[in-house]
Amino acid sequence: MSTERLTGNMLIAQSGGPTAVINQSLVGAVLEARKHKQIKRIFGSLHGLKGILEENLCDLGKETKQNLELVAQTPSSALGSARKKPTPEDCVKVFQVLQKYNIRYFFYIGGNDSAETTHIINEAAQQAGYQMKCFHICKTIDNDLRENDHTPGFGSAAKFVAQAFMGDNLDNRSLPGVKINVIMGRHAGFLTAAAALARVYPDDGPHLIYLPERPFSIEKFLADVKAVFEKYKRCVIAVSEGIADENGVAIAAKFTKEVDNHGNVQLSGSGALGDVLADAIRKADIASRVRADTFGYLQRSFVGVVSANDAKEARQCGQMAVKFATGGQFDNGSTAIKRKPGRKYAVAIERTELKNVAKETRHMPDEFIAGSNNDVTSAFIAYAKPIVGDLPKIGRLKAVKIAKA
Amino acid sequence: MSTERLTGNMLIAQSGGPTAVINQSLVGAVLEARKHKQIKRIFGSLHGLKGILEENLCDLGKETKQNLELVAQTPSSALGSARKKPTPEDCVKVFQVLQKYNIRYFFYIGGNDSAETTHIINEAAQQAGYQMKCFHICKTIDNDLRENDHTPGFGSAAKFVAQAFMGDNLDNRSLPGVKINVIMGRHAGFLTAAAALARVYPDDGPHLIYLPERPFSIEKFLADVKAVFEKYKRCVIAVSEGIADENGVAIAAKFTKEVDNHGNVQLSGSGALGDVLADAIRKADIASRVRADTFGYLQRSFVGVVSANDAKEARQCGQMAVKFATGGQFDNGSTAIKRKPGRKYAVAIERTELKNVAKETRHMPDEFIAGSNNDVTSAFIAYAKPIVGDLPKIGRLKAVKIAKA
Repeated sequence: MSTERLTGNMLIAQSGGPTAVINQSLVGAVLEARKHKQIKRIFGSLHGLKGILEENLCDLGKETKQNLELVAQTPSSALGSARKKPTPEDCVKVFQVLQKYNIRYFFYIGGNDSAETTHIINEAAQQAGYQMKCFHICKTIDNDLRENDHTPGFGSAAKFVAQAFMGDNLDNRSLPGVKINVIMGRHAGFLTAAAALARVYPDDGPHLIYLPERPFSIEKFLADVKAVFEKYKRCVIAVSEGIADENGVAIAAKFTKEVDNHGNVQLSGSGALGDVLADAIRKADIASRVRADTFGYLQRSFVGVVSANDAKEARQCGQMAVKFATGGQFDNGSTAIKRKPGRKYAVAIERTELKNVAKETRHMPDEFIAGSNNDVTSAFIAYAKPIVGDLPKIGRLKAVKIAKA
Repeated sequence: MSTERLTGNMLIAQSGGPTAVINQSLVGAVLEARKHKQIKRIFGSLHGLKGILEENLCDLGKETKQNLELVAQTPSSALGSARKKPTPEDCVKVFQVLQKYNIRYFFYIGGNDSAETTHIINEAAQQAGYQMKCFHICKTIDNDLRENDHTPGFGSAAKFVAQAFMGDNLDNRSLPGVKINVIMGRHAGFLTAAAALARVYPDDGPHLIYLPERPFSIEKFLADVKAVFEKYKRCVIAVSEGIADENGVAIAAKFTKEVDNHGNVQLSGSGALGDVLADAIRKADIASRVRADTFGYLQRSFVGVVSANDAKEARQCGQMAVKFATGGQFDNGSTAIKRKPGRKYAVAIERTELKNVAKETRHMPDEFIAGSNNDVTSAFIAYAKPIVGDLPKIGRLKAVKIAKA
């Protein structure tokens, strides 16, 4: 633990999939950094580690506060992002560039892979005896980071999903049939589960919710859909793109040959899974009108649908990372959102060890998943509601029936 | 033309695809009707003509104003809708039911098919010597009704498309690649064209826009994408679900075997077209990261994205239909939104003949389509902007580059 005041430059970068509030974290960190004299220049790396490796950096000291505030409310990584996971050699090279620019404060906004990368860069600096504060700032719409009650980006994506399902349920009520919506989330079902927040009236959809945390069986699925359709004459279904069978094989992989350049089945950016499930329902002759939509990239970067708490907390994570880094108490770490006990929703941004967030991810806990394996529990609703915040109010007609003449 | 005061009951129904503001028209008509003493009871038919045929009616006189106002701001037909086009026998049956319930004021909210149906019902009443005012209230997200500058529902759907593209362009800028978004609109490209409103900076997407009004060639498409990708290292594309080749054969039909129960190729509710185009780009080796999203039903019923002008005009169309029907000047007709000349945006709701709106639809005029056939013109932007209204403000970093150390 260092107690002296470490003086030098700061570098911040963004990584992985964008979110609607990822720039709140960026701007929170940059504006907080301006308050600390030991931080000299503030650099941004363009497109994550790629920008560091190519020394493609920008001067965030040149940004006006006004423009930064506009950027803060703009979805998707303003510095650009990157998907490539760095090799150990990359990390050594990254460290060398950071050293060359006298970076003493390094901040990396991302998910668990980014926490791992921050950890490796931190170790490279320590081994070289180079003093540098390395902090990871949490973000992911998947909500799958350990140590966090929830993650920045999830609340806004969940709000989009909830509002989409509110509308789609109304659409399905107007023109009845079976409607499947495929939601992002390869291994964690939180975002798919957020569809449940759309329910206002007892018969509202989603009527069925399928999460990657539970094995998916097409026979069980068809039986579930049939039962709902018989009850309501319609059925709205939320399906995670990552649903897999009892052996962990993704359903999308079983039915489609769409693979990306690395031979991995492509789950996002394709409508295949929804179409396959719709086809199965048609073939089982459950309903004549069957449709599937895949929400795709709209969920994570939609302009104009932002959770107020999500935006606020993302900002705080950026601020707190700089406070932790300049406070003298910690050399490295990751920001973690902890929920305070009590009935009123409140959070604290705490510092946790990088290794606690790196590598492994978390999943929907059992108490959030209904025993039927096709729904969420009221505990999940209570958990997710304040993260997502208020949803638009909707109504329906009393529609008092007239006696036939 | 009748001059006496026709006294009796009113019936209103909703038809076709839902919109975000279709209940504004319903509530506008109902609240206006309450002001007119010659209208006795106000009935709603559940699920369009189906509700009339089955005498499945509700009493809209039993709704509180407060609840109606909540319904007005709720997307998707509150009375329920229907897709089935009535046979001539159905129309006679409908007329008989209307007569049985002493309906003297009939209002049908829908697109051109609904105008046609209203026309047929009106003729049946006239032939029977039964006095009844028959009015069609315009709506469709496709914006393809003749006589109308634009139609209720279009502005809000266009706003959704624009906001989605704003976010998706930012996403694509952050993680470059080729991104295709498939938009609703089988024959008219207005909604796809609205993607152009997303552009804020000169290099913003959508970089290419393909409309059903121009023949689509896969070779031209691939050459266009290649050129954009070489210029920007990324490419965002808006494609209408209805794009067709020079013989009018839908591209979706050429590449997919997905057909509905009537043997028609299913364009909405399937991700097939986007996947096919993405695959063609991958095969042509233009870019390694290629993704496709199909916006699907989200576009027409999303909760929380509504154009203020669209909501206001939809309300006015409902009000004006009742005013036309009760005013004594007209026995039947359809509401049509006319734009007033002048620099400031203003509209008037006029009455037009049912047959002027029925059957045929309109398309994007030539002056709205760029000569390159892959974009819209500034005339379209000027036309669409006030209909859609203000979009959320976004910003980007100045990102002043640092000289390499």
